[in-house]
Amino acid sequence: MYSFLNDYSETAHPAVLQALVDTNMEQCLGYGEDEHCRQAAAYMKEKMDCAKVDIHFIPGGTQTNTLAIAAFLRPTQAVISAETGHIQGHECGSIEETGHKILTEPTEDGKLTIAQLEHAIKMNLEEYCPRPKLVYISNTTELGTVYSKKELEELYAYCKEHDLLLFIDGARMGSALACSDLTLKDYPKLCDAFYVGGTKNGAFLGEAMVIVKDELKEDFRRHMKQRGAMLAKGKVLGVQFETLFRDNLFLELAQHANTCMDVLRDGIRQLGYSFLCDSPSNQIFPIFPMDVLEKIKEKYMVLDYMDMENCSRCVRMVTSWATDLNQCHNFVADLKSFTK
Amino acid sequence: MYSFLNDYSETAHPAVLQALVDTNMEQCLGYGEDEHCRQAAAYMKEKMDCAKVDIHFIPGGTQTNTLAIAAFLRPTQAVISAETGHIQGHECGSIEETGHKILTEPTEDGKLTIAQLEHAIKMNLEEYCPRPKLVYISNTTELGTVYSKKELEELYAYCKEHDLLLFIDGARMGSALACSDLTLKDYPKLCDAFYVGGTKNGAFLGEAMVIVKDELKEDFRRHMKQRGAMLAKGKVLGVQFETLFRDNLFLELAQHANTCMDVLRDGIRQLGYSFLCDSPSNQIFPIFPMDVLEKIKEKYMVLDYMDMENCSRCVRMVTSWATDLNQCHNFVADLKSFTK
Amino acid sequence: MYSFLNDYSETAHPAVLQALVDTNMEQCLGYGEDEHCRQAAAYMKEKMDCAKVDIHFIPGGTQTNTLAIAAFLRPTQAVISAETGHIQGHECGSIEETGHKILTEPTEDGKLTIAQLEHAIKMNLEEYCPRPKLVYISNTTELGTVYSKKELEELYAYCKEHDLLLFIDGARMGSALACSDLTLKDYPKLCDAFYVGGTKNGAFLGEAMVIVKDELKEDFRRHMKQRGAMLAKGKVLGVQFETLFRDNLFLELAQHANTCMDVLRDGIRQLGYSFLCDSPSNQIFPIFPMDVLEKIKEKYMVLDYMDMENCSRCVRMVTSWATDLNQCHNFVADLKSFTK
Amino acid sequence: MYSFLNDYSETAHPAVLQALVDTNMEQCLGYGEDEHCRQAAAYMKEKMDCAKVDIHFIPGGTQTNTLAIAAFLRPTQAVISAETGHIQGHECGSIEETGHKILTEPTEDGKLTIAQLEHAIKMNLEEYCPRPKLVYISNTTELGTVYSKKELEELYAYCKEHDLLLFIDGARMGSALACSDLTLKDYPKLCDAFYVGGTKNGAFLGEAMVIVKDELKEDFRRHMKQRGAMLAKGKVLGVQFETLFRDNLFLELAQHANTCMDVLRDGIRQLGYSFLCDSPSNQIFPIFPMDVLEKIKEKYMVLDYMDMENCSRCVRMVTSWATDLNQCHNFVADLKSFTK
Repeated sequence: MYSFLNDYSETAHPAVLQALVDTNMEQCLGYGEDEHCRQAAAYMKEKMDCAKVDIHFIPGGTQTNTLAIAAFLRPTQAVISAETGHIQGHECGSIEETGHKILTEPTEDGKLTIAQLEHAIKMNLEEYCPRPKLVYISNTTELGTVYSKKELEELYAYCKEHDLLLFIDGARMGSALACSDLTLKDYPKLCDAFYVGGTKNGAFLGEAMVIVKDELKEDFRRHMKQRGAMLAKGKVLGVQFETLFRDNLFLELAQHANTCMDVLRDGIRQLGYSFLCDSPSNQIFPIFPMDVLEKIKEKYMVLDYMDMENCSRCVRMVTSWATDLNQCHNFVADLKSFTK
Repeated sequence: MYSFLNDYSETAHPAVLQALVDTNMEQCLGYGEDEHCRQAAAYMKEKMDCAKVDIHFIPGGTQTNTLAIAAFLRPTQAVISAETGHIQGHECGSIEETGHKILTEPTEDGKLTIAQLEHAIKMNLEEYCPRPKLVYISNTTELGTVYSKKELEELYAYCKEHDLLLFIDGARMGSALACSDLTLKDYPKLCDAFYVGGTKNGAFLGEAMVIVKDELKEDFRRHMKQRGAMLAKGKVLGVQFETLFRDNLFLELAQHANTCMDVLRDGIRQLGYSFLCDSPSNQIFPIFPMDVLEKIKEKYMVLDYMDMENCSRCVRMVTSWATDLNQCHNFVADLKSFTK
Repeated sequence: MYSFLNDYSETAHPAVLQALVDTNMEQCLGYGEDEHCRQAAAYMKEKMDCAKVDIHFIPGGTQTNTLAIAAFLRPTQAVISAETGHIQGHECGSIEETGHKILTEPTEDGKLTIAQLEHAIKMNLEEYCPRPKLVYISNTTELGTVYSKKELEELYAYCKEHDLLLFIDGARMGSALACSDLTLKDYPKLCDAFYVGGTKNGAFLGEAMVIVKDELKEDFRRHMKQRGAMLAKGKVLGVQFETLFRDNLFLELAQHANTCMDVLRDGIRQLGYSFLCDSPSNQIFPIFPMDVLEKIKEKYMVLDYMDMENCSRCVRMVTSWATDLNQCHNFVADLKSFTK
Repeated sequence: MYSFLNDYSETAHPAVLQALVDTNMEQCLGYGEDEHCRQAAAYMKEKMDCAKVDIHFIPGGTQTNTLAIAAFLRPTQAVISAETGHIQGHECGSIEETGHKILTEPTEDGKLTIAQLEHAIKMNLEEYCPRPKLVYISNTTELGTVYSKKELEELYAYCKEHDLLLFIDGARMGSALACSDLTLKDYPKLCDAFYVGGTKNGAFLGEAMVIVKDELKEDFRRHMKQRGAMLAKGKVLGVQFETLFRDNLFLELAQHANTCMDVLRDGIRQLGYSFLCDSPSNQIFPIFPMDVLEKIKEKYMVLDYMDMENCSRCVRMVTSWATDLNQCHNFVADLKSFTK
């Protein structure tokens, strides 16, 4: 049984684990004030070609989203998100727990457009509505789709004109970097804050929060402490990001994930199956007849996403740095044999 | 320079790291639903001789305290804590952030007594006061002191009589187990919930939340998800606790920390120095004249705690599983030489 | 210019004001512990034929909704509401501010059905979703529609089977009582808590929160105090509800509002205009061509609700205890003249 | 039995009630957008000689304190308050419910000094402490004491130097205005926001929130809406403050309260009794032997405040606009007869 369930099944890239072993008995300062965190942030700033951002390492993605929104917004300010946004449907009400309403917009492909921002603003003009203040997008999105540089430029220009903050959830930014025209250098110019996800691209835990806008930087470490997001042994995060960003490992791992997915996507498409939407990244949502799916599930784990008409079902398949490319070829071969 | 600053300077016990390496490429279910978390919980329940508790693995201590109090209390219910309690002075207002007031009582030694609980109740009888509902204690305490079995029995009996929940912060429970008459078997009988700290006793991160009282168990995983306390790669926590509790490693590591501290404590006392309070665990608070302290700080890192009279200062010293026993002997020898 | 904008334009029924004048210099206990609050609650319990409920008087409706939901729910529990629910669109994120997510369902007429509850439950089964726990309905609804006794019985039976609390926002319960088969005696049998709105039916401020389910009663006054909902001069609320419920004034005022609206509704319908939905209460949503509406607005204030096709607009019109019946007849006569 | 329990026993000054009667059937806009609220604010701004403040009318004092602090602070910012501050001991954890910690300082007389602000700052320098950001004081204080102009000038200068906001709870500002060298013109120059209490000085409910600092003004009405502090019939508040501030009624009522208290205070002092502290306003805290107190309580209601040594007790006595001056003389005469 091979799992294409998600990109967090295996633990960490061996080089990351080795770095942990190598630095094990160093006596480091706690709470992220160690040399490894400092060095990891320096590597990342270099790759962003931007010295002025603040970088903080945080254990998990839900925590990072929650923290950012809680720290950045005042009580009556609300978040605009796609209906498929991770904060809306997959974080158990974490944003509302911090006191903020999410104003959702339906989308075709998980990507927000300016028309949708306009709609959200128009629907919340009255004093008895919370004020839309922060736009939350994910890249890659929850549907595996990716923003182009032009799209992001337009979104951010609109946000700045309308006094909206733009925050990008980068849980799967690795995969996006490996399949879009956006590089790490672009992000600090195109949003107010974002995070670069380690958990789904080589680390065993850890997300790098990057704060661009000066007004959002104050006391962020206090926010982290308050929300339990400051690890005593912060070096454990520093060492991982140091390893991922010293050279080019982070991007290489994402490229591997995408390459694996290219095999799956192309194979599935060539066998005539359709997809929920076009996604160039490490997540796809193919649609299989139920009888074919049953056979798939005898050998592979995939995630049921939604039932479709004509006795078929859309499933989610995900690859990662750890995916065995052979298993992708095997899947395609098997699928061919299941396809009458 | 050798650090006695805290018990989270080094990363993890080698056996713990090795287990991580050994299980690295296993494809596991996410979010703590893997076999390692299950097995770790089973080992711990066995050591507690109690099958009916719920055990959840959580990245950090502040997160665990916050989560417990947020999940267990209703909006107008308050927490009773010693003034020195970690939640009061070291978590940046995390409990208040969840909406709950902390009612603090001054103590001699960081331990709450029944008289203090009585006082907190008496001062909050009126409707315009929040209702004291949860008693927070730490064992060991923030001052290194330890509750005896008799003390804990009396506290819990009082709590049950007065409709109070008893929650024990066990960030340093390892050290307490290694120097008190309380065993892991006692805890499920003597409180409603507690946690067993991994971060400060062999793990690189992770605390094991143990919920005893049935009414507190419902939806705890949803609370974890909501507060970002559910790691995608939950197995990373499971593997560590599996290693610590399969045999006796957890207790052995704590014993090593205490043994190291015995050397420091005895040596310092024999040289005629006094302490802020008597603490049998891996934390001590000796008082040194400033000139002696200056010399100490040329070779050792210790934490300034508070200035005392007569040009002396109380400092905190901490040992851990990773402390080099030789360095403890060195410290005592050096101190002897600094002492006119 | 005569206003049909809402049912809170005038201050209070003269009998209510007179009672305030009559009791002005009485020295009363504060915070709702006075004799007038006690007597008002007694009158209401008598009319409900139910001695076991708890009744609390609260200044406003948003405050009452917020308080109920904050007091009744635990952090990861969510509210099911119609998309048109007052808490969703008109209270500036008040529920989210208390930490709870609202799960909205689209409706035809502002009324929730069992099918919608089933849908909300089905969509939130996973651990990463908040648990639906409280069903919020309004009667009359925000669209002026009204639940029948049979509908409410079925809803509540479903709620009890599925461990859901049923809470009824009765900001306009007066009008509902005056045009449905539900009497005050029915409510304590058909939900867990509800409120009876004074502000929109004779009082100048005040809502009577009625808690039926015992588990929800504990410390409610502390919740009120904490959320600033306990007036120092609570007697001001008691005196008003005493006056409204001593005899039959509350129902008589609602009947007057409904009678006024019957004139408007029938007149508008007979002139051939349609409505957004059928509403038997003191709120209607007629649709007028823009040119007719312009003429209306020269003499009457109505609320723009939404633009419709064919250059027409849906507006909201509301009557109250204070509406001048002659003005309703005038409106119909004027409308007749505006209609080609 | 005559009550000196508090200053909210009677309802409202007859002129205030009459204004309510006179404007009863006016059709006004809701939510504080009516002409009476506008006019009341204009009168107040005139008396403050300051056109640039924002004024909002809010039903109650706890609500006003909560709202201000929730609106003004970010999550990790804390409040400095005297231990006797109303928000600390009398509002059921309302501030913590909004997520903010209160850092309390013990005081002699309920008044904060610069030394105490310095202490609070010094104790919270570390990242694991919330940042002190808002100083909460009351004038008159909860002990009836009053800040002088010089004291307030020094406090505010210190606050501005240290990036602290100064907020003044004016629940009893009327009495302070009538017995200190601070006039309404001074307040906008000496703090960032304050409120002027109506409930305890002639109104039956209502506090006027005055926001001076521009950065604190944004979206305050949304905050009010979100926290249920925006009355549908806002005019009820406007009409009252219009009456109190059109001419000089507000100050006259406070002067009456103080005059009544002068009789009580002088009489009690001349009979040889001592006080908890010197208070020039409408609240005093005299200390009586228990046997004398028993006799007092046969004819007068006073509030037990705290037991003192030698079988004596400190009680609180309060006068208001409604106090009968004759009853004050009666009290003194009676006390004389009770005094051996």
